[in-house]
Amino acid sequence: MDAFFDPGSVAVLGASNDSSKWGFWLAAGALRGAERRRVYLINATAGSIQGQPTYARLRDLPETPELLVISVPGPTVAGVVAEALENGVRAFLIISARVPDADRLAATIRETGGRLIGPNSLGIVDSHADLLLAWGNFIPGSLAVVTQSGQLGTEIATLAARSGLGVSRFASIGGQSDVRAAEVLATLVDDPATAQVALYLESFTGGAALVSALKALRAAGKPTMILTTGASSAGARLARSHTGSMTSAMDTVDAACRAAGAIRLATPGQLVELAGFFASGWLPKDRRIGVLSDSGGQGAIAADTAESWGLDVRELSAGGAGRVSELLPEADHIVNPIDLDGAGEKNLDVYADLAEVLLTDTDIDAVVVSGYFGCYGEDVPDLRDRELAVVDRLGELVAEAKKPVIVHSMSASSPAVTRLWEFGIPAYTSIEAAMRVLARAGFYAAHSGRLTESLELTGPVTPWGTGYAAARAVIEGAGIPVPAGVTVGSVGPGESRAPAEAAKASELRPPFALKAGWPAHKTEVGGIVLGLSDLPAVETAYADMVGRLGEGEYILEEMDTRDHVVEILVGGRQDENFGPLVIVAAGGTETELFADTWLELAPVTHTEALDMISRLSCSRLLTGWRGRPAADIDALAEIIVAVSRMVAGNNAIAEIEINPVRVAPDGALAVDALVVTTENPTAENVPAEKPNSEE
Amino acid sequence: MDAFFDPGSVAVLGASNDSSKWGFWLAAGALRGAERRRVYLINATAGSIQGQPTYARLRDLPETPELLVISVPGPTVAGVVAEALENGVRAFLIISARVPDADRLAATIRETGGRLIGPNSLGIVDSHADLLLAWGNFIPGSLAVVTQSGQLGTEIATLAARSGLGVSRFASIGGQSDVRAAEVLATLVDDPATAQVALYLESFTGGAALVSALKALRAAGKPTMILTTGASSAGARLARSHTGSMTSAMDTVDAACRAAGAIRLATPGQLVELAGFFASGWLPKDRRIGVLSDSGGQGAIAADTAESWGLDVRELSAGGAGRVSELLPEADHIVNPIDLDGAGEKNLDVYADLAEVLLTDTDIDAVVVSGYFGCYGEDVPDLRDRELAVVDRLGELVAEAKKPVIVHSMSASSPAVTRLWEFGIPAYTSIEAAMRVLARAGFYAAHSGRLTESLELTGPVTPWGTGYAAARAVIEGAGIPVPAGVTVGSVGPGESRAPAEAAKASELRPPFALKAGWPAHKTEVGGIVLGLSDLPAVETAYADMVGRLGEGEYILEEMDTRDHVVEILVGGRQDENFGPLVIVAAGGTETELFADTWLELAPVTHTEALDMISRLSCSRLLTGWRGRPAADIDALAEIIVAVSRMVAGNNAIAEIEINPVRVAPDGALAVDALVVTTENPTAENVPAEKPNSEE
Repeated sequence: MDAFFDPGSVAVLGASNDSSKWGFWLAAGALRGAERRRVYLINATAGSIQGQPTYARLRDLPETPELLVISVPGPTVAGVVAEALENGVRAFLIISARVPDADRLAATIRETGGRLIGPNSLGIVDSHADLLLAWGNFIPGSLAVVTQSGQLGTEIATLAARSGLGVSRFASIGGQSDVRAAEVLATLVDDPATAQVALYLESFTGGAALVSALKALRAAGKPTMILTTGASSAGARLARSHTGSMTSAMDTVDAACRAAGAIRLATPGQLVELAGFFASGWLPKDRRIGVLSDSGGQGAIAADTAESWGLDVRELSAGGAGRVSELLPEADHIVNPIDLDGAGEKNLDVYADLAEVLLTDTDIDAVVVSGYFGCYGEDVPDLRDRELAVVDRLGELVAEAKKPVIVHSMSASSPAVTRLWEFGIPAYTSIEAAMRVLARAGFYAAHSGRLTESLELTGPVTPWGTGYAAARAVIEGAGIPVPAGVTVGSVGPGESRAPAEAAKASELRPPFALKAGWPAHKTEVGGIVLGLSDLPAVETAYADMVGRLGEGEYILEEMDTRDHVVEILVGGRQDENFGPLVIVAAGGTETELFADTWLELAPVTHTEALDMISRLSCSRLLTGWRGRPAADIDALAEIIVAVSRMVAGNNAIAEIEINPVRVAPDGALAVDALVVTTENPTAENVPAEKPNSEE
Repeated sequence: MDAFFDPGSVAVLGASNDSSKWGFWLAAGALRGAERRRVYLINATAGSIQGQPTYARLRDLPETPELLVISVPGPTVAGVVAEALENGVRAFLIISARVPDADRLAATIRETGGRLIGPNSLGIVDSHADLLLAWGNFIPGSLAVVTQSGQLGTEIATLAARSGLGVSRFASIGGQSDVRAAEVLATLVDDPATAQVALYLESFTGGAALVSALKALRAAGKPTMILTTGASSAGARLARSHTGSMTSAMDTVDAACRAAGAIRLATPGQLVELAGFFASGWLPKDRRIGVLSDSGGQGAIAADTAESWGLDVRELSAGGAGRVSELLPEADHIVNPIDLDGAGEKNLDVYADLAEVLLTDTDIDAVVVSGYFGCYGEDVPDLRDRELAVVDRLGELVAEAKKPVIVHSMSASSPAVTRLWEFGIPAYTSIEAAMRVLARAGFYAAHSGRLTESLELTGPVTPWGTGYAAARAVIEGAGIPVPAGVTVGSVGPGESRAPAEAAKASELRPPFALKAGWPAHKTEVGGIVLGLSDLPAVETAYADMVGRLGEGEYILEEMDTRDHVVEILVGGRQDENFGPLVIVAAGGTETELFADTWLELAPVTHTEALDMISRLSCSRLLTGWRGRPAADIDALAEIIVAVSRMVAGNNAIAEIEINPVRVAPDGALAVDALVVTTENPTAENVPAEKPNSEE
C-alpha cells in the first residue's frame, strides 16, 4: 500500500490546464510533492501543463511510475490500464467514473500482482508524505479520512479544516473494485501521523475484515468514527420470521461498531464535532456529569439538554454537596446543576474551586460549565487576567483528574475561550454541542470493543426440516429448556404412537398443547391447539388435526401455565456482511409496534446477554414491574447465549427464532421455535441425526 | 406598558462608575437614549458618572421620572420604592436580586396604580426607542426576547447577533411579581418592529392568558419560539390514576404550544437557528421535500437526515420524474434524492432547472440542495458569474413558488452563499442544520393554533362519589357508550334489588361482570368479577362480594366479549396552568412502558380527536393490524370529544379516566371509569342528581 500513499514516482494520465477539469487539480497537487518524488504529467496534446513539460504517452516516460493516476474518460480506461500493465505499472489510482466492467479490470490488475484504488475515486492524499492527488483543499493534521463517496470525504475534510483539524491521510476508495476500506484502515493502525479516523461506507461486504481493522485501530488508541447510509441495503431480509424484518441494516452496523469499539454518527458535521473533542479533550469514563452555571436558567437548560442526550446529571454526594456549600455560603440548597447565583461575580476563583470539587468526586465523569464564563474579561477589562488565571487552573485540574471539563460560553472567541481549547478544555457556543460531544464520547468510552474470538461455540448441526419438531430438537440439543413433551403420530416409518398413551407413558401433566411437527408456519395452518385440559380433549384435538393436516409427526407438550410470565423473543441469524447475529426483543405486538429489540454480533457472553436484555424497554417487566416478582433474567440470558453460540457455530442455520421464551420467576422456557436453514451449508456442517428415526 | 418600553424620562437609581457593577451598564445604556428622553442618574456619593452629573436622591430630580430603574442591594429596595411612590413614580424596573417579600412590594405598587417589572430583572431594551437598560450588547433587529432568566435571554440575543439577527425588544421579566410574560407578549402583537418572538419561561401560571397572547401573535404572522425547562414543576400530579402520572409537564406545554400556534424548542441555539430561517426563508406548508445533490453520498446522508427529522423525502410523481430525466439524460433511474452525477459540472443551470421542476410539483413543499453548490465559483474562478446567475434564478423561482429552497453547501461564506441568503434562500454548512430548520418550520406551519372558543361544552355536573357507579353515570350522561347494566344491591334507602332478578328484568345477556359501585379502587379491593357465565354464578359472586365488602350499590353488566378489540385509555384533567386537558393512550402496560400517550388542551373537535389517535404508536392496531379488521376509530374519537367537553365544561371534575375503552370494528365501549372531583368546585357546578335515589 506504500505505493499509494508515498510512491517514489507518480504519473498523472489526463493532466490538464483547465481548472474546471480533474486533470488540472491532480497535476497541480502532484507537482506539490515534486521535492519528495518524481512527478510525470501525461497529456497527448498539451506541450506543457502548469509550467511543466508533459509526456504524450506513458511509454515515453523515463521510468515506470510507481503509481499511475488515471483521469481519462471512463470507456478509454481499460485500454490505458492494459498498456500500463504492459509497461510494468502495478499501482493504479483511477479517478475516472463510468468505467465499464470495473470488476474485470480490477481482476486483470490483480493477476499481474498489481493493485487498484477506484475507479470513481476522488483521489488520495497523504499530508505527511506531501502527496496530494485529489480535488479539494487539505490542511495537514491527524485525522484520516477513508470514504466510499469522494465528495462526502472532502466535506469531512473541509468541515475539519474549518474547526482547525487537519488531515493525515485521505483515501477516496470509490467503487472498491480492488482495495477495500478494511485494507486502508489497516495501514492507519501504525501510521504515526494518524490519531483518529473518519470512515464513510455504503457497503459492508466483508464486514468481518472491517471489524478486525476497527478493533486494531481501537487497540492502538485511535477512535474510528463511521458514517453510513440506511438507503443502502445491507442484505436481503429473510421474511419468514420476525427476526429478519424487525431489525434494520443500521442496527446491524451499530452492533458491529459496538463489537469493534468504533462509533457511528449520522452526518459529517457530527463526526467533525466529535473529532474536535477527541483531538482536544479527555475521554469521560461514563455518562455521569456535574454542571456549573452562573445562571439558573442556563443551568436548567443544560440539565435538560444533558438528560435528553442520555447523560446523568448526578445528585451530589453528601460530601461533595458539603464542600460545594462551603464555597457557596449564600446558596439556599445545593443541587446539581450548581447555580453560582452571583458567586462568580464576587470571586472568579469559585469556578475553579467548584470544578475541583466535582472533578475529584468519584461519581462524576465530566464537568460542564455553562453560561457567562469566557465573557468576563471581554465585558470588564479589569477581569481579563483573573479570568485567564482561572482558565490556567482549570487546565491543571483537568490534567490532574484526567477527566474532561467542557465549557459552554456565551463568548465565541475571547482570549479565555481560546486558552480553554489550548488547555484541552473544549468550549462551545451552544449547550447542545457540549452535551452532544460528551454523550457521544461517553458512549465511545463505554464501548471499547468486544473480545468474541475466544468464546465457545456450539458444534455444527443441521436441522432436518423447517418445522417445530426439528427446531425443538435443535434448541433442546443446545441446552435450551423446552416444555416436557413427547413425539406422537407417525414417529417413524410405519410406526405410530397414540397421543394419550404417550402422555401417560411420559407422565405428562395437563393442560396440554398439541403441535404439528413439520409445517414451517403451524399457527397459520391450524397446527397448534393449546389448553387441552385432559387426555380425552387431546384425543379429540389430535383426531381433528390429523383430519385437517394429515398423518405425520406431532408434538404433545405440557403447557406452561406459570404465573408472572413475560414473553420474550430470542433469535439469531447470519448477516451477509457481518455474519452471525443474536437478537432479543419484546414478545407479542410490542416488538413490532415499538421496535423494542436489540441485537449484537454473535456469540455473546452471559454478561453481554444481560446487557442486551437491559436495553429493551420491556426489561422493566422482568425486574419486578408494579410489585410483581422479578423474572429469572439469568435463565433468559442463558438462552440468548445458547442461541448466539448456535448461530456463530453453525452457518447451516440461516435463522433461528424462539418466540416466545416464557420467562417466569423460576426459569425460562422456549415454547415455540423456528429454524431456517441456509440453502448451501458448508461441508463442515453435518446434518443432525433425526430423533425417533429408525432408518 | 409604554412607560417601560418608551418612557419620556428615566432615572437610574444605583448608577455606578465601576464597570463590573450593573449600575455602570444601566447608566451607560440609559445615556445612549438621551436624545430621545430625559435621563437622570442617581447616586448618593458620586458627583458625576460617565461624565454626567448625578443626583443624590430621587426627590432631588427636576421631575418625576416616568420609569425608575432600581439597582441597589435587595434589602434596601422596599424603602426606595416607598419613597419613589410618594414622589409619584409609577413604573418600576427592579434589577436588584434577593428582594425580600417581592409579592407584597408588587401589591403595594399596584395599589397606587403603578406597575413593576422584576425584581431580579436583567433589564429591558427597545432598540427602536433607543432604550437600553440592560447588561449586554444588543444590535437592533426584529426579534423580541421575553425571558424569565435574564442571562438566558442575553444568550439568545448574543447568538442572534452572531447570526445577523437583531433585537426589537428585550424584556427580562425576572420574578414576574407584577408584569407577567403574557402582558409583554401582548404589546408585541402590534409592535411594528417585532417580526418574531423568543420566550423563555420557567413558570406557566396563568397559562390561559399566555395562550391567548400567543394566538394573537400567530394571527399577526409573528412566530413565537418558546424555551422552558422540565425541571420546573408544572403542578402537583394526581396520583390516583394513570392519567396524571403518565404525562409530563413538558407534554402539557407542548399541547399549549400546538393550541396557540407557537413552537417549543430545547435550547437557545435551536431557537436562534430557527429564527434565522423564519427571518430569511419561506415557510414550507408541510414536510414533503425534494433533495438535489451532486454527490450520491451526500444525497443519501441528506435523505437519511431528513427522515430522522420526520421529513418526507417523496418519491417523484411520474410527471416530475419524466421532467427530471429530460434534464438528466445520462441518469440510469430517477429517484428522490436526485443525484446530479456530474451534470452540474457540465451545466450549472441544471441546478435551477431541477429546482424548478421540484418547486412546481404540488406534492413537494420544499427543496434541499446539498453538496458542492456554492463552491464552484470559489474553486474555479471562471464559474463564479455562472454560479451567481444560478443563485439569481433560484431566488426568482422561490419568490414565484412561495416555497423554501434550502442549501447545504460545503462553502461557508462564498459570494454565492452570501447571495443565497440575500434571496431568502438559507444556506448551511451542515446538512443537519438544513433538515432541522425545515422540520421545525414544517411543524410550525402545520400547527397554526386551534380555535377552541366556539366549541360546545358539556354542562356542569358533579359526580356524587368516586366509585364506578358515579363515574359510569357521568360518562353515560355525556353520551359515552357503556355496557348494558343494572344497579343491584342497595339501590336506595331501605331498598334492595337482587342481581339475578334484575338481570332477568333488564334482559341482560351473559357473560356478566359484577362490580362494586362505590370504591375508588375497586380492583384493588376485589370489587370486580368478570366472566360470570350464568345467573347462578352471578348470585355466588354477589354473595361473596357482599360478604367481603358489605352491602352497597353494585353494578351488574353484560361483559364485552367482542373479537378484535383494542384497549385504549381516554382521560381528562384540569391542569393548574393550562386548564382542561384531554388524553388518549394505549391501554395496558404499553402506556407506561412506551409512553404511548398524547394530550391536547380540551375541548377538541372530532377531527382533532382523530389526529390524537393517529399520534399513538398503537394506532396501527386500530387501522387493520396484520390483516385484522379495522376498529371503529370514529367511535373512539367521539368518546375523546365527549371527555374533552366534560373536563372543559366542568371544573368540578378534577380528573376523569376511562380505562379501558374497548374499541372493536362495530363500536367503542367504556368498560371502566374513574372520576376524581375537585375539592372546591365553583358555585356554577351543580351536583348531579344521583340516579336510583329516591330522596
